[in-house]
Formats: sequence, structure tokens, C-alpha cells
Amino acid sequence: MKIITKFSIIQKEIKKAKKQGKTVGFVPTMGALHQGHLSLIRIARRENDLVVVSIFVNPSQFGPKEDYTKYPRNLELDAELCGKEKTDIIFYPGAKEMYPCGYNTYVTVERLSDTLCGKYRPGHFKGVATVVTKLLNIINPDIAYFGQKDAQQAVIIKKLVGDLNMPAKIKIMPTLREKDGLALSSRNVYLNPAERKDAPVLSQALDLAKGLVKRGVKDTTKIVDAMKHLIKKKKTAKIDYISIVGLENLEPLRKITGSCLIAEAVWIGRTRLIDNIIIGVN
Amino acid sequence: MKIITKFSIIQKEIKKAKKQGKTVGFVPTMGALHQGHLSLIRIARRENDLVVVSIFVNPSQFGPKEDYTKYPRNLELDAELCGKEKTDIIFYPGAKEMYPCGYNTYVTVERLSDTLCGKYRPGHFKGVATVVTKLLNIINPDIAYFGQKDAQQAVIIKKLVGDLNMPAKIKIMPTLREKDGLALSSRNVYLNPAERKDAPVLSQALDLAKGLVKRGVKDTTKIVDAMKHLIKKKKTAKIDYISIVGLENLEPLRKITGSCLIAEAVWIGRTRLIDNIIIGVN
Repeated sequence: MKIITKFSIIQKEIKKAKKQGKTVGFVPTMGALHQGHLSLIRIARRENDLVVVSIFVNPSQFGPKEDYTKYPRNLELDAELCGKEKTDIIFYPGAKEMYPCGYNTYVTVERLSDTLCGKYRPGHFKGVATVVTKLLNIINPDIAYFGQKDAQQAVIIKKLVGDLNMPAKIKIMPTLREKDGLALSSRNVYLNPAERKDAPVLSQALDLAKGLVKRGVKDTTKIVDAMKHLIKKKKTAKIDYISIVGLENLEPLRKITGSCLIAEAVWIGRTRLIDNIIIGVN
Repeated sequence: MKIITKFSIIQKEIKKAKKQGKTVGFVPTMGALHQGHLSLIRIARRENDLVVVSIFVNPSQFGPKEDYTKYPRNLELDAELCGKEKTDIIFYPGAKEMYPCGYNTYVTVERLSDTLCGKYRPGHFKGVATVVTKLLNIINPDIAYFGQKDAQQAVIIKKLVGDLNMPAKIKIMPTLREKDGLALSSRNVYLNPAERKDAPVLSQALDLAKGLVKRGVKDTTKIVDAMKHLIKKKKTAKIDYISIVGLENLEPLRKITGSCLIAEAVWIGRTRLIDNIIIGVN
């Protein structure tokens, strides 16, 4: 396994592999790898000749008051995990490599970036769209893999790849969870024991919603209210939003219909967690 | 020579050619081809195995009061000219092919897009950056060719290709001119005989500036004033701007130094013309 920090060098490696007819699978990450990431690397390994994992904590997607500096970083452990999953190349650029002095170009996916988490994290998805465009241009993968846990990110990336006519195929893989339902996230390490005990309420609220839909409840306000009621019972929890939206356009729904995304962002203490489920109704 | 209207089809053609080890040269145009375009196609022909010319009047780079609908279009003549220059493929997409319903993704090159023509044509360079990103993704050329006549566009495209880590090489070729100095432009057809007679004043003003610099004048205000004085003698002329800026950052200069761009936009009657020269000073 190689660790490469320069985009010009990895571009040459990829070009060489492509000339040999190899397919390239790509898993972009911010490091602090957990089983969710590893499940993406595993499927990339099964489906491609060359597997590239990028580890880059992207400054342009963090707000000024967010956790950019304290975001967990551990290259050694990450590299060990990638090695176990038979990753071929880790791309590990520095911030100056990705955003050199005078950097000026940004990609925005309008409308889709302003709703849900975009309302609470202005500029976040501009940073995500920009870095993903850059990484896809550098790695030029046949398939890039993302997790469903970041549902809005997944929708935005699929949209930008289609809109900008990028050649990569985007695959979104299911959220992995702890036994008690908590969605795997690099930010879970921030939780203290009391918060960790409260945190599964995000997935419990989604299960509640799923149950209500199963029993025929269609009114999204009723469902959201029931979820809020459940979450508010936890002392450490503070809701940013709970929304039920169309799966592709992320527009709010009054009635459950077609494919819906139920998405939520909840502060557990000083840690902001997100979770979601997709519900299909005929 | 093939004319292809669907991006999925041309992407397949290009992929096939690349698999055969062919290099791809690309000349993006809005049609209404003149000798300036043809000179780009000629050099693309010399330097590449496969030559692709795109013809697309890009709606997203025209303002609501600009000449999108009346911009000259003549596919038959353009195709004949491309054929004579041994173009392999013309990519001729419709507006719905490039911007399907629900299109949402835009590329912006900040700072560089807000100066010079960007001040007078808000949104113009966002449209240019977006369509060029899309076209480069679709055609995936080894080299793309642009004209120096659109100097700000050239700077912005080089910047975005670098910033977004796109693999294409960008070559900027010299402006071609009529015998009387008028820079070739598809918009020259708008000029009536009296306007056509006044139009060379743009290049005359640039020549004047060049002469002043040669004689040791360094003060950019003096140079711009002399240019303005000359242009204002023409009845049909109305200046949008004359600016002397750094060649890479497009920032205004008080003194001529290093590589400067002298750029101007002047209305001749109801036609907005642009022209520029690069001056290198040690």
C-alpha cells in the first residue's frame, strides 16, 4: 500500500493503472475510519482492480465555529485499517496541496445545499461539492463510494456528478450502526458516557417514524411531532431539525408518498449528530 | 466528420479513441465560426489524433438583456468550415441536453469573475466556468484551445482547471485581426457600415498604449486617459471600461510592471466589443 500526498503523483499512478485497463474504486474520507468506512472499502475492493482511499479533513466544509481543529485525526491507525482491507493507495494531501495560496474556484449545487443541514451549516455543502469535484478529478474513479449516513451529501454528490457530466459512477452504501442503533460516525468519540447513553434516541426516533408509517400514518407533521416528543425526553438532546422530504429534490412533504427521506440533526451535548432513513410508499 | 448531439454518445466515442491511445484536441465554440476559431482548429489538428469542436450557444453566460436569441447561428456553414479543417467530431448539444430540467450545479471562480467584463456582465463568467467544466468533463481532452481575444475568460479557465485539478492542458492562442486591426469576433456581423468604420479604434487604442509604454510611460492612469481620449473621438463609441491589470490576478495596476494585460470593452453602436493586449516589461 502506498501513501501519496501530491495530486500530480497520484494522477500519474492512476493514469498508469488505467492504461493497463484497470478499474479504479474510490472511497473519499476524512479519516478517523470506522466500520462504516471499512464497509465502503470492502465493496470497492470487491468491485475494482485498484482501490484508492483519500484521507483529508476538508477545511472548506467546516464553519468558523465548527470542529475543524478538533476533528479526530489518526493517520497511523487509519493506514493500518486500510492495509487490512487491501487498499492499494491512500491519498493523504495537506490543506495547502488542495487549497494552495490564491485558490478561488468553488462548486455549488443550488437549492439542494440550502435545506436540511445546509440551513444550519452555511457554506458546508459548497465545501463538500468543491472537494468532491477536486477529488473525483484527481482520482478519476470508475466508481466512488459514499455512505447513506450523510444523506444530503449523497443527494448533492449524485446531482453534481450528473449536472457536471463527470464520468464516475456514484454508489451510496447503507448506514452501519452500533448494536443499540447509533449510526457509526467519527464524531461519536466526542460523546461522554451520559451522552453516549442518550445518543441512540436518533435511531429510535427513526424507528418510531417507520412504525407510524407502517400503521398508515401519512401526515408528516404528526410523525415529526412524535419524533420530537421522543427525542425531547433525553436531557442531553437538542434538535436542530427533523424533516421529511422528497428523496431526490429534498423538498418538504406534507404527506408520506413515493420515496421519502426522513432526516434529522440533533445535538447530544456539544456533539451534533445526524441520522436518516429512506421510506418507500406506494 | 460526425455531428453528435448527445453527451453520452460522444463520451463513448472519446472513450473508444482514448483506449486506442489517441490524443484528443478540443476547441469549444459558440459557432458563427471565423478565422480565429479556424486557427484554433488548425493547431488542434496539428497537435492531436482526434479533433473535437463543440458548437453551443451557452444560455447561462448571457444576461437577460443580452444577445442570446439574436447571437448568430449557422450550423451548416460552421460544419462546412470544420470539415475543411479536418475536424473529426462536432459536438452540437441542445440547451436541454446541457441544462436539463432541474439543473442546479454551478462553478464560480471568485475574485477573477467580478472584475473587468464581470462588472458589466454579472453572472457571465459563472456561466462560462460552468459550461467549460461540463464540456471538459464530456470531451476529456488532452489539450483544449481558447483565443486570447477573450482574455479574462482565458485567465478564469486556466485558474479553474488548475484549482479543480482537471487533467486537460489549456492553450491560449493569439487574437486574429482584420487588416485594419479589428479583432475577429462573431459579433462583428452586428456592425453597420458606419460602426464598422469606427470599430478598429479598439485596436488603435491598444497600439497607442503599446507605443506609450515603449516610450517609457509607466503611469497607467496616463495611458488609460490617452486611450479614452482616442476612443471618444468616434461618434458610435461608448466605453464600458479600459483597465490595466496584472496578467494572472487581474488586479488593477498603478504602474506598468511585469506582465500586464491592457483590456477594454467598448460599445460600437449597439454592439459590445472587447479587445486586449499583453505587455511584458522588465
